Formats: sequence, C-alpha cells, structure tokens
Amino acid sequence: MDAEIGLVGLGTMGTALALNIAEKGFGVAVFNRTAGVAEHLVAGAGPLAERLTPCKSLEAMAEALHPPRTVILMVPAGLPVDQMIAALRPVLGTDGLIIDAGNANFHDTRRRAAEAEAAGQPYLGIGVSGGEEGARHGPSIMGGGPRSAWDRVAPILEAIAARFDGVPCATWMGTDGAGHFVKTVHNGIEYADMQMIAEIYGILRDGLGLGPDRIAGCFKRWNDGPLKSYLVEITAVVCRAVDPDTGRPMIDMILDRAGQKGTGRWTAIEALHLGAPATTIEAAVAARNISSRTEERASGARLFGAAEATGDLDETQLEAALLAGKIACYAQGFGILAAASDEFGWSIPLASVARVWRAGCIIRSTMLDDMAQVLGEAPETNLMFAPRFAERLRQSHASLRTVVAAAALSGNAAPALGSALGYFDMMRAARSTANLLQAQRDYFGAHGFERVDRPGAHHGLWAGTF
Amino acid sequence: MDAEIGLVGLGTMGTALALNIAEKGFGVAVFNRTAGVAEHLVAGAGPLAERLTPCKSLEAMAEALHPPRTVILMVPAGLPVDQMIAALRPVLGTDGLIIDAGNANFHDTRRRAAEAEAAGQPYLGIGVSGGEEGARHGPSIMGGGPRSAWDRVAPILEAIAARFDGVPCATWMGTDGAGHFVKTVHNGIEYADMQMIAEIYGILRDGLGLGPDRIAGCFKRWNDGPLKSYLVEITAVVCRAVDPDTGRPMIDMILDRAGQKGTGRWTAIEALHLGAPATTIEAAVAARNISSRTEERASGARLFGAAEATGDLDETQLEAALLAGKIACYAQGFGILAAASDEFGWSIPLASVARVWRAGCIIRSTMLDDMAQVLGEAPETNLMFAPRFAERLRQSHASLRTVVAAAALSGNAAPALGSALGYFDMMRAARSTANLLQAQRDYFGAHGFERVDRPGAHHGLWAGTF
Repeated sequence: MDAEIGLVGLGTMGTALALNIAEKGFGVAVFNRTAGVAEHLVAGAGPLAERLTPCKSLEAMAEALHPPRTVILMVPAGLPVDQMIAALRPVLGTDGLIIDAGNANFHDTRRRAAEAEAAGQPYLGIGVSGGEEGARHGPSIMGGGPRSAWDRVAPILEAIAARFDGVPCATWMGTDGAGHFVKTVHNGIEYADMQMIAEIYGILRDGLGLGPDRIAGCFKRWNDGPLKSYLVEITAVVCRAVDPDTGRPMIDMILDRAGQKGTGRWTAIEALHLGAPATTIEAAVAARNISSRTEERASGARLFGAAEATGDLDETQLEAALLAGKIACYAQGFGILAAASDEFGWSIPLASVARVWRAGCIIRSTMLDDMAQVLGEAPETNLMFAPRFAERLRQSHASLRTVVAAAALSGNAAPALGSALGYFDMMRAARSTANLLQAQRDYFGAHGFERVDRPGAHHGLWAGTF
Repeated sequence: MDAEIGLVGLGTMGTALALNIAEKGFGVAVFNRTAGVAEHLVAGAGPLAERLTPCKSLEAMAEALHPPRTVILMVPAGLPVDQMIAALRPVLGTDGLIIDAGNANFHDTRRRAAEAEAAGQPYLGIGVSGGEEGARHGPSIMGGGPRSAWDRVAPILEAIAARFDGVPCATWMGTDGAGHFVKTVHNGIEYADMQMIAEIYGILRDGLGLGPDRIAGCFKRWNDGPLKSYLVEITAVVCRAVDPDTGRPMIDMILDRAGQKGTGRWTAIEALHLGAPATTIEAAVAARNISSRTEERASGARLFGAAEATGDLDETQLEAALLAGKIACYAQGFGILAAASDEFGWSIPLASVARVWRAGCIIRSTMLDDMAQVLGEAPETNLMFAPRFAERLRQSHASLRTVVAAAALSGNAAPALGSALGYFDMMRAARSTANLLQAQRDYFGAHGFERVDRPGAHHGLWAGTF
C-alpha cells in the first residue's frame, strides 16, 4: 500500500522509466505479463529496490497503490494497449488514471480518450522522447488528455523529466491525442534534421572527398556554434568511431540502408491531411525509402555513373546551409502543430513544445531555446519571419543556395536541403506561379479562378484564343 | 424496354457521358434526383434524343432497361454514392451491374466492392478522366472490379472512350479499387506535371523576364518536340490569351492562389503508406498549399526581398530540364502503381495504364506512348532505367541540373524539378548516406544496423569513442 504509481510493461523503456521514478523518490508498483520479469527488475535495482514493488497480477498492483490509483502503460503500441486498458479498468476503479506512455498513433489516443471520457474514467496519452537513456535519466514528456488528469500526475512526470535551466521538460499539450501528436511531429522533425545532416555528410564525403575523421571534426566544431545539438554532437562521435573488428572507421562499415518505424511517415501523412507543408520531412521519409532499394540504386549507378566532386565549398558555407535548412524545417514542423491544433481544438502551446524539446529528446538543441522565446512572443508567426530567425536566414540563405546548387550540379543528392530552400523561396514569393495552375485548371476543368483586380470567381474565354 | 444502359446523375459530367453513349449508338435511360433534369437533357439533345429515355424514378429506369441491367452512377463522391447504391439495388435485381464512374476514393470503392461481392451483386468502380470535354467526346477510362462485370460493359465503355492510333483508352486495371486508384495516381502525376510546367514558366517570367507572349512561344515550340502533350499545349494557349476586360494578358490577371480537390493529396498519402517515393507529387501538393498563403508570402517578400534574375539559361536547357523532370516524375508515378498493385493484389497492367493515358485524359502525351512500349517490355523496371528513357536522361539530366541550380541561386523556387533531380540522383547512388542515419539511430535508440562486410544485425560500441 505504499506505491504512488504503477508501471505495466517492463521492456527497455518501461524498466528505465520505473527506475527513474524510483530514483526520484516515488514508490513504484511494477508488473509485466511474463512472470519473473518484475522480480528480476527489482533484484537488479540495487538501492532503488526498496521503492519498487514487484506485482504478480494487475490485482496485486492495484492493491499496492493508494486510491485514486495511477498506472503508466509502456507496452507495444496498438492492440496490446487496448487489451491492457480493458484488463486494468475493472481493477483500478472508476477514478483510476491510466497513462499510455508508448508510441501510440494519436488517432488511437483520440479514440481511447473518447471512450474513457464517455465512461468517466481519467486517461492520458503521453509522448516520451529520449530513448532508453532519456527514459532512465530524464526524458522529454508531452502530455495529452484532461488537464485535471495531467495535474494529478504532473509532480511525478516533472520530477523524472529532463531539465533545461532547471525547468522540467514535461508539459500538457492539450486534450486527447495532443501529446502523442506533438511526439509524432518531434519524430518527423528528427527525420528531417537527420537527413539534412546526412546530406551535408554526403557532400563532405563524396563532394569534397573528406575522410570520416575530418568530417567528425567539422561536426564537432559546428557543435560549438549555433548548430549545437544532440544530433550534431553524435554525428561527430559516430564519424570518429573505429570498428573493433576491422580497425576501419565504423561509419564506413555500416550498410547504407536506413530503417524507419513509421513516425516520420505519420507526420507527413497528417501534414498532407492538414494541408500544411512538410516538404523537408517528406524528403527525409523518401530518402529512407530509396536507401533501402540497394539493387535498384546499383542499376542506376551502372547506367548513369556516380556523382562528381563539388569543389569549392568551405566549411562555413556548409554550416550556414545546415542552419538555414534547419530553420526552414522547424518552421514547417511548428506549422504542422499549429494546423493540427486548430483542426483538433487542442490549443497546443507552441512555445512550451519548443521548451520541452530543449532537453531530453533526440532533437534537443540550443536553437530550440531561441524558438521557445520567439514562439512565446508571437506563436502565430511563421518561425522564419520572427526577427531573430529572419536575421539568421538573411545571413545564411545565400550559403544554402550555394550548397543546394553545388549538390544539384555535382549530383550529390540533397533533397531535404533543397526542399527547405524551396519552402523558404515559396514563402517569400509575393507573386507565385499558381496563376498558371489556375489558368490550366480553368481551361480543362472549368474550375474558375480569382482575379487580381476584383473579387469573385471568374472563367477565361480560352476557346477564343486558338 | 430499349435502353442498353442507365445513367444516374445528370450534372456536367453525367450529361456529357450520356450524350457520348447515345452518340455511339446505345440507348440510354437517364435519371436525375431533381425532377425535370432528365427531360431537359433529352429536350436539348437534338438528334440524339431518340436514344435517350428520361426516367422519373429508379423503378422507371429499371423498366426501361433489358435485364441484366447496367447503370452508371455519376453522382458526387462519398455518401451520395452509398445512398444511390442502396436505392438502386432493390430495383435492379441481383444481376444488376452498378458502375460508380465518379471520383471515389479507392478505399471507398474497395469497401463497396467487398459489400457487393458478399451479396453476389456485380459492381465496378471506374475512373473517368478528361473533364467535360473528355466525357462528351472520348475520356480515358480506368476500370476496377470483377473481370466478368467489366467484360459485360466493355463494348460500351470502349465505344465511348478516346482512341489512340485506333486503340480505345478503356481498360480493366484489376479488382475492386484498382480503377479508381489508377485514376488517383493519374491526378497525382497531373499535379506534378503542372507544377513542373509552372516552375519553368516562373523561370521564364521572373528569372529571364519574358512576357506571356514569348513564354507562350516557348511552350508552343516545345509542343512540337518530345514534350508534346495536352498540358504543354494548353500552357501555350493560356499564356497567349487576352483578358477581354482589360486588354492585358489573361494570365497576368489571374490570382496566384491554386485550388485543389484532393486527389493529388490522396496520391501522396497513399504513396507514403506504401513506402513508394512520390517527392515530385508531394512538392506539387505543397506548392499549391503554399500558394494559398498569400499574406504570409507577402510578409516573406517584405523580409527577404524577391528572387533575382537567373541569367544565361537558354530555351533548349529549359526544355531538356522539363523532359528529365517529367521522366523522373512518371517513374515515381508508375512506382506507386506497382507498389499498390503488390499491396492490394491487383496485378495492374502498367503498360495498359500508359496506353489508356495516351489520349482522353489530362496528362495525355506522346511520351506516354513510349512508356507503354517500355512498360510492355519490362514492367518491373524503373522507367528511368529502360534503355529509351535512360538515353533521354543521359542527354537531359545536365540541363535539369543547370536549371535547378540556377533556380536555387536566384531564388526562383523550383521544388518539383528539384525533387525530380533528387530522386534521379538518389536512384543512381550506389552508396547513399543512410549509413550515417543508421549509425545515429543505433547510437540513440539501439536500433542496430547491417554491415557492408557480413550479414546480420549489429550494434556499434559508441560509448568507447568518447
């Protein structure tokens, strides 16, 4: 009867989270479907063992918890979550709070939240970012569900979360699926961020012919500047690593075929549904898909030859290009959040999103601290247009142009950087080329168009022009 | 009792289709929910009136048809289709064939096909492309459903379809939603095709400073070469048209804000679900979305200034760039069809798709005739790799590079052309940069990676490298 919270699902993430909670001074009742797992966790928990109560059943876990009870699920997304909710509800009582901390699709979270609300039972869906390391020592936590339910468990979540300047990276993002949606977009941005870094890596490797050590040096230096971030930092680390088996650079021994678990794709799909541009994320998802087509790429190389040297790009240009691309990419990401917030009635606090992403999660960076401030002042503004980022873009977009052009001319694909530049240029085009699209659409489909000189819907007298 | 086929829904498209069928010598029983519409159609049909039977009810239409009856629906997509099917079933008899010829989402068609199959009732979903003009004088028709149902109505559909070298542009694409899916991808390609043309138009207008007349001249000349197509042809026409109200070029009086009806977006979403690259279509969808943000673009222009002149691009380079971009874009489109065909078990005949797209539909072009031949010989091959297109790409990809680079440097956004180039370059990269992605993913998430020198899943010893 002395546990503050229950945790169901003791895989890598669940175990790490349980230990983190215990370390912060809370009693945790732990349960896993497979017998012995909970006991094994406690046996290996050292001094934390005294705050961990292994439970042999959900009923035993419920007994170990003070009512009103709170239980975190860390089970695989999908059916297992529904099954566990169904099993837990009867034993937790109507006021029992169930928290899904797994990687749920936010549509599922919305459905479960609606079911819980209809039954008068508290339910939260929270996104937890930072991998095993984050879960153990301080993740970034994005919550969704009734505010009252969040407030009930906030002291624990804030205690276990990462901190940036002392501020916990755990925030309520809105009702129902808001938390899992913010986590999804985090991952979409992560895809794009990684892809842009990989494109710069590719230009350094294939366009400039640098070895992994020198590439690592670039990223290490950039990590002391405005690009300072976890992803840039670990890029330097992995480029410097040596393969113990061969003594060669580890990065050169890794097959160039990327996996994906779907959250990048989800982000792109939702952005399309919302009509929010997500071209950098789309480029990143496509790049992973194409990377897996090893044989097809080999055929292409035989037919068309390899990329050429870029020549004449200096380190400062590449750094500035990555910076500009990153700003455009994050502008898209926050644009997706704003559109979803409108669509689903969440009122997502965009500045708080940037704040909880400053530490604990994979895309953490110093730039997110600036974004938090900018979004706090003007959440409605496109991030690229906020004075601080507009100034950075004015200083860096010429470099992004140089790098994208060099990539295009030499054949070293830089699709994410290119799409970031395209987004920037389209968003600063007072006059787009969509007038032609409208003329074509009216010509073949009589869709009509607006005129520049007066309101209303109009049609062209196209036939007379033949 | 002398009508071969019924037609329900007498809007623009339904009326055009009914007249087309009558003109080909078939008796058509026509019905519209609103009283008087069918009579009005027949009254205005001139000599075709004798083959048109206006019906006051679905029962009357059923009586006018020989069993087994066949009825085409041309009603708005969504609920109206379901409602009309429910109303028609009882009066048509179990062997009555219902054909949805509207713009259904293929997921809906799959559902309706499954319901019809379970009830033992024949059902087809057919995509009809070509707008009102096509429906009236020869559309491109893409059929989906039981082969036996298609064969039953094929004589009529082949008679009314467009023809290319005497071959009707009407083909069975596979079971259930195959026809509507092929139509969706047609529209996705149409978006990309139009966007690439608009980007070239933008470079001519803003990068080279040409007026609409000279731009029209370019497209007119290109329409005599390998780019010969309906969309290039009408681009010349709309650029030459004069606004009767102001005497100015019509194209300059049209607001640069593009509409969309969703099929481009659907294609991109399905491609993401299938893991098939669709970056040019995604870029086109995003460009339309961004075009509608007029005020935001104006803010961007105030902050960052306008694009600059490109200088030094000749007409031949732009033509070649559009050609290369188009091949890459169609390679993506057929790749999406191939992936969907596998996923849904359709066995879509890709060569036949190219064949029915050669006439009647919006993307009709001479290049599709080449594609039909190439896909007939090797449907499994990426279109870019087939000898005939590989040769064209070898001759044109340098121009695409020049144009994309010039667009990047000058700030005249060319996101679809850029993404087409990125796709080409990624598909010919024997060694991609995804090894870095895999290293990063293993570092922060222990996702594991494959090695270049031996099979299996591996992890890096990253910690030791700090």
